[in-house]
Amino acid sequence: MTSTPSTHAEAGARRGDGVLARGDGVAAWRQIADEIEAEIAAGLLPAGTQLPTEAQLAARFGVNRHTVRRAIGELAARGLVRATQGRGTFVEGGRVPYPIGARTRFSENVARAGHAAGGDLLEAGTVAATAETAAMLRLAPGTPVLRTRIKRFVDGVPVSIATSHMPLPRFAGFVEAFGRTGAITPALAACGVADYRQGESRVSARIASAAEAAELDLAPGRVLMVITGCNVDMDGVPIKAGQTLFAADRMEFVVEP
Amino acid sequence: MTSTPSTHAEAGARRGDGVLARGDGVAAWRQIADEIEAEIAAGLLPAGTQLPTEAQLAARFGVNRHTVRRAIGELAARGLVRATQGRGTFVEGGRVPYPIGARTRFSENVARAGHAAGGDLLEAGTVAATAETAAMLRLAPGTPVLRTRIKRFVDGVPVSIATSHMPLPRFAGFVEAFGRTGAITPALAACGVADYRQGESRVSARIASAAEAAELDLAPGRVLMVITGCNVDMDGVPIKAGQTLFAADRMEFVVEP
Repeated sequence: MTSTPSTHAEAGARRGDGVLARGDGVAAWRQIADEIEAEIAAGLLPAGTQLPTEAQLAARFGVNRHTVRRAIGELAARGLVRATQGRGTFVEGGRVPYPIGARTRFSENVARAGHAAGGDLLEAGTVAATAETAAMLRLAPGTPVLRTRIKRFVDGVPVSIATSHMPLPRFAGFVEAFGRTGAITPALAACGVADYRQGESRVSARIASAAEAAELDLAPGRVLMVITGCNVDMDGVPIKAGQTLFAADRMEFVVEP
Repeated sequence: MTSTPSTHAEAGARRGDGVLARGDGVAAWRQIADEIEAEIAAGLLPAGTQLPTEAQLAARFGVNRHTVRRAIGELAARGLVRATQGRGTFVEGGRVPYPIGARTRFSENVARAGHAAGGDLLEAGTVAATAETAAMLRLAPGTPVLRTRIKRFVDGVPVSIATSHMPLPRFAGFVEAFGRTGAITPALAACGVADYRQGESRVSARIASAAEAAELDLAPGRVLMVITGCNVDMDGVPIKAGQTLFAADRMEFVVEP
């Protein structure tokens, strides 16, 4: 009855070209960028493919070439395409794969994918645990806990911001150890955690606030993937509860069975 | 050094209020809706909380009340807040939790969360397997496979669209069995699959294209979570490969360790 789209033109036709939504608070150039991004994500425009010309895209979407140029500039800012002088615009390689599951180790995972991991401690301090944090850490609400915010990088590009809460006094030495090692796993080891695993976690996605986008060096309106959860030590005692925001343009999660 | 925000005002200050990005192709009302959505998602405005008044929000974001009203209308359209005549606007309950992992069963999972599951077969037909599909199903590229598109519902609201490819002739009876049962697991059982599990899957997120948003009854520019992967039977033989798009406003994934 149907056939898998085998050409760009078919894919375009299936997606309802030229039908930009008007008055929805999203400019035409941004809607065009979103359409092309969806096609890249769906595999209709694989890495290395050349984009159609500005004139072709202008005709396809029923807009002028200035609008198309701005859409392509937006896709370049998202890291999805790259313009090559005199040769055209090409689809870039994909997102960094990031395994999530019982054993999630940022630095190890990123290194295994062939990239360089980095981490900056943005904030650290003692706060009173909120009801939600206290429940995850199995503490009474209001118990003082260590709160940290850590920005993580892949090949120097920011990919995530993790806000974590850790019980005290057990993790009083975490900040100093993280400063020394630059990675979470050795800093936890310095606090006596030989090994740890992920408890139940929740994954959602939403548009970044302006402040979140600025912190992750994202264009306004880009997408975050959000993991909320807790780590436990090998005795099952909660050691860290919090939420990590990932730039969805730069990472994808791998769930292993 | 820092303290967890305990009031809405503190949370607002931390997020850089009044600093709407101009000229970024996203209207002020949509940026305000995104900011408030981020606060709801971050737990700063829990379910049942009353939103600040229009006048308070207008002052906070440095816009007029008409713009605030449109932002609140957008949040209501996203299902995140509900206006109560004469009492104000309140934050709605959260997203439907959806476990992902080795045993992912849409209808069972939704029922367990206390909701009614539904499914509509949008398309079914025989296509030649693309290179990617063939690799996941361990077939030669070009082998004929059954392609289905199924829209799924929770309490009558569309939540996902799954595009799947299944080997033939093994699943020649799938469409008829799905029509009879309305759920994937019994339809697979009718094709002789007593049990199955998820292989490795990838989770990403992006903004919906206009056509995808229309199919899922989403406002333009809303976020999709995308799972790409394969199911295998209990002998490890691939039975289904494809991609499912989830409305991120309506579902969140639960990853169990």
